[in-house]
Amino acid sequence: MVTLGPNRYGKAEVRVVRVTRDAEHQLRDWNVSVALSGDLEAVHLVGDNAHVLPTDTQKNTVYAFTQRLGDVEPEVLALELAAHFVRDPIARARVTVDQFGWTRLGGHSFARASAEVRTCRVVNDAGAGASVVGGVRDLMVLNTTDSEFWGFARDEYTTLGETHDRILASSVNALWRFRSDANDWVAAFGVARQALLDAFVGTYSYSLQQTLYEMGSAVLAAVPAICEVRLVLPNKHHFLVDLAPFGMANENEVYYAADRPFGQIEGNVLADNAPDPGLAWDC
Amino acid sequence: MVTLGPNRYGKAEVRVVRVTRDAEHQLRDWNVSVALSGDLEAVHLVGDNAHVLPTDTQKNTVYAFTQRLGDVEPEVLALELAAHFVRDPIARARVTVDQFGWTRLGGHSFARASAEVRTCRVVNDAGAGASVVGGVRDLMVLNTTDSEFWGFARDEYTTLGETHDRILASSVNALWRFRSDANDWVAAFGVARQALLDAFVGTYSYSLQQTLYEMGSAVLAAVPAICEVRLVLPNKHHFLVDLAPFGMANENEVYYAADRPFGQIEGNVLADNAPDPGLAWDC
Amino acid sequence: MVTLGPNRYGKAEVRVVRVTRDAEHQLRDWNVSVALSGDLEAVHLVGDNAHVLPTDTQKNTVYAFTQRLGDVEPEVLALELAAHFVRDPIARARVTVDQFGWTRLGGHSFARASAEVRTCRVVNDAGAGASVVGGVRDLMVLNTTDSEFWGFARDEYTTLGETHDRILASSVNALWRFRSDANDWVAAFGVARQALLDAFVGTYSYSLQQTLYEMGSAVLAAVPAICEVRLVLPNKHHFLVDLAPFGMANENEVYYAADRPFGQIEGNVLADNAPDPGLAWDC
Amino acid sequence: MVTLGPNRYGKAEVRVVRVTRDAEHQLRDWNVSVALSGDLEAVHLVGDNAHVLPTDTQKNTVYAFTQRLGDVEPEVLALELAAHFVRDPIARARVTVDQFGWTRLGGHSFARASAEVRTCRVVNDAGAGASVVGGVRDLMVLNTTDSEFWGFARDEYTTLGETHDRILASSVNALWRFRSDANDWVAAFGVARQALLDAFVGTYSYSLQQTLYEMGSAVLAAVPAICEVRLVLPNKHHFLVDLAPFGMANENEVYYAADRPFGQIEGNVLADNAPDPGLAWDC
Repeated sequence: MVTLGPNRYGKAEVRVVRVTRDAEHQLRDWNVSVALSGDLEAVHLVGDNAHVLPTDTQKNTVYAFTQRLGDVEPEVLALELAAHFVRDPIARARVTVDQFGWTRLGGHSFARASAEVRTCRVVNDAGAGASVVGGVRDLMVLNTTDSEFWGFARDEYTTLGETHDRILASSVNALWRFRSDANDWVAAFGVARQALLDAFVGTYSYSLQQTLYEMGSAVLAAVPAICEVRLVLPNKHHFLVDLAPFGMANENEVYYAADRPFGQIEGNVLADNAPDPGLAWDC
Repeated sequence: MVTLGPNRYGKAEVRVVRVTRDAEHQLRDWNVSVALSGDLEAVHLVGDNAHVLPTDTQKNTVYAFTQRLGDVEPEVLALELAAHFVRDPIARARVTVDQFGWTRLGGHSFARASAEVRTCRVVNDAGAGASVVGGVRDLMVLNTTDSEFWGFARDEYTTLGETHDRILASSVNALWRFRSDANDWVAAFGVARQALLDAFVGTYSYSLQQTLYEMGSAVLAAVPAICEVRLVLPNKHHFLVDLAPFGMANENEVYYAADRPFGQIEGNVLADNAPDPGLAWDC
Repeated sequence: MVTLGPNRYGKAEVRVVRVTRDAEHQLRDWNVSVALSGDLEAVHLVGDNAHVLPTDTQKNTVYAFTQRLGDVEPEVLALELAAHFVRDPIARARVTVDQFGWTRLGGHSFARASAEVRTCRVVNDAGAGASVVGGVRDLMVLNTTDSEFWGFARDEYTTLGETHDRILASSVNALWRFRSDANDWVAAFGVARQALLDAFVGTYSYSLQQTLYEMGSAVLAAVPAICEVRLVLPNKHHFLVDLAPFGMANENEVYYAADRPFGQIEGNVLADNAPDPGLAWDC
Repeated sequence: MVTLGPNRYGKAEVRVVRVTRDAEHQLRDWNVSVALSGDLEAVHLVGDNAHVLPTDTQKNTVYAFTQRLGDVEPEVLALELAAHFVRDPIARARVTVDQFGWTRLGGHSFARASAEVRTCRVVNDAGAGASVVGGVRDLMVLNTTDSEFWGFARDEYTTLGETHDRILASSVNALWRFRSDANDWVAAFGVARQALLDAFVGTYSYSLQQTLYEMGSAVLAAVPAICEVRLVLPNKHHFLVDLAPFGMANENEVYYAADRPFGQIEGNVLADNAPDPGLAWDC
């Protein structure tokens, strides 16, 4: 016999752009995804859609809330949408909002900023209430020095040489969990992002894991409203090119940037007094 | 104060190709990723790498094992690698192997088959032993009819009309958990994949959730060695084009294939007697 | 002073799917792009759109023609659309149709075939008439042996060793020019594609350039209606892994598949009596 | 009988990074591609590689020149490399250098700037000498107003309404041809890029073609060393969402950003006294 396990459904990647026509136009460029769960057994077992609010309706709701809410932070949109969707038979809603950055060129003109994406995710549960995760991804950073790697474990498959000066580069993917659902979202994002950068720049690194821990700790120190940081840091290898065959030195000047394989370093850093995450991480 | 939470590290996306030079050459085209965890506090806190087996060594190990093992199924490679990496101070290893398919053109010639990817993932834990998940992703399927969607919930944001004949298309992402780590891997993959296709084709569908449940149930029925199936099915919308402005009918003939947004339907289907997953899903 | 040079505009990537509801449903999955040129100076110089047929209209036209024409080959759609758009003030139209392949699973069910794309491009010029180019791209092929590379030129930057046995792999991108605009399109595509594969498989190769020339020649020999073939063949490097540090041999068995950089081999092969291409290649 | 037509070969996408260890480290992040042509008939016809300088050697040459030249502009690297490769039997070399931008975070620390790519391409021909093209691509820009579209041509497939206020957005792809191969490359790029932005921002637009022409003209006016500009401007549609079903107005505030299809506007703008392009555009 067979049982239905955890399940959810929703509309993904609603690309909504909001222009607020103040003296200077404000621009919000969002990618919104919704996932709902609840009493959805009938649709799975017999195709009865009576409890299924169409994903098309969810899309419409994103548009309508974007209009109604005005020029708000993405966390506010996510909170409002998630709260809206939780009503019988839907017991839990997860809303993710990615915000793409634009640099102002004029009163109504913009150029797309860096490829990094500000993100947030709200889980609202009928029983447990709302939790908020913020973050940034695809934030590429690189130190040309102040990075070493030596003293590592060795086995019969180890050929890597030790290095006392290497490039350290990564595309930062960070998510941070807030203690509550009421915060100064602009300040929290800005301070957390800057703490990540400062720690990356300021850490004399003996391993990317060490840098990761410093980055996570820095966010916790800088933003008390945040109690946990999850970091995924690909080690984007830059290998020194051997120029000796051409009679040339290479004193850590010429590297090739490799695509694959890459190192992948993942870790969580928590405040000692972090409350239980509840449903924050996995709805 | 701050604490280190769950963490892991490893080499991702080692692109190894193995040729076995039998009378007819055999080809294996793999993408292998390794993630290790254990007593790694020192490297995070003070940059002491004594417990860190370099990800470069992990890459070398993938190559060496590929050579030694010969023309094996990807699950065998993953099991052997994962078992190898678990030794003090590493308490847990996760090894993922994606296998790209090739169609034989001749004794030593091949053309890349469809874009679908066969995947497997082994978690080996010093305490809990090994668990195996198999699967397929990016398997695109489409029914031109026998799909309806009506009788759904409505609210103030619902504008969608009911339909009694639509295209149903998805890019199947399925992972299935095995009851043990000793199975006929070729047969299990082939039968599970065919069960997915047969259920997609054979289900007269009133919702993609219903089709998902039928697909998961079919895998469980066809492969007793599998006890749980996780499906993620994007609803790749095909919208009927309105040709009335040009004086033309459109009796479910001309559609446009939309990119975004898309529906996202996720669900697990379990055998009633499925053992506890342990670490199978999240290492 | 400044002058307007060559220009064109149009709607790109109209993703249209046509279902023909015969006893067995037929499926066409197309990506259609239109580019028009002609007397378009006013719109560039002063923003006068009187000569600009909106790209939205072009999109509608693609849909309407797809409905009217029925289950035709992509070349027929491209020819009909291109002919339609050429009328004063539009002097020239280029229509590109990519066709994605699907494998039949049942009377109304399909699975996406390989990632390769069949393509065609029609240029219709008010003066010169219509020309047709067909082709295929992203057709990945690989020989595990029968490929050598030695006896090459050397200079002070050459470190590459000679090899008498290597993997030869490419993602074939081929375009072929037809002598006329009336052909058996199904047969021409099928025979040309098979000729490419047969030549790749059957050529004992001393360089990818040699294989390219054989592939182009084979198409010309197999399809008299084709007078010129343009090939772009990335050399998808597979490098032998050095296993000696682990005390293991590697008799051309274990390779790593590199992403970048890659070789890029481009060449045209023409029938001696090929007519002038006119506007076939660049509208 | 069959003939070999135009052909070329080379190494593509050599990802080289150069660190110049001044008091503040300088960073160059390049993607270099080489294409050579000349007397290459023997390799195509009989696989004789005597005239083939391996693409691996070309890669090595990129590395060595990067070391030797130091912290130069990408145009300098391309000029030096192209000149180097042209010697019997190679009659022509094309070298493309893409430069990825990084923002300084500290003396040896950087964050990746916007996704836009600065590019340049040098063609060096044994007979015709060197020509230089510069440019930028993936520069995303958006005006929230000051864009109209009306008074366009209509036919039986036209359903588009006129608009007097729309979002105008594009991802600018611009290439510009220099009159000579000796210029202040930093200034030329900076001034040309700014001219593109200023023209996009400052043009009250009745069509994207008009904006294109203004952008090209602005580059020519700002940088006399440039004689021709080629622009490819996708019209990244933002469609107004209909909120009337929910009883809400939408005074040009809420849009959805569409992926496909998209408009594609291409055009050249030339100085009246532009010299013949020779081989600048197509080697």
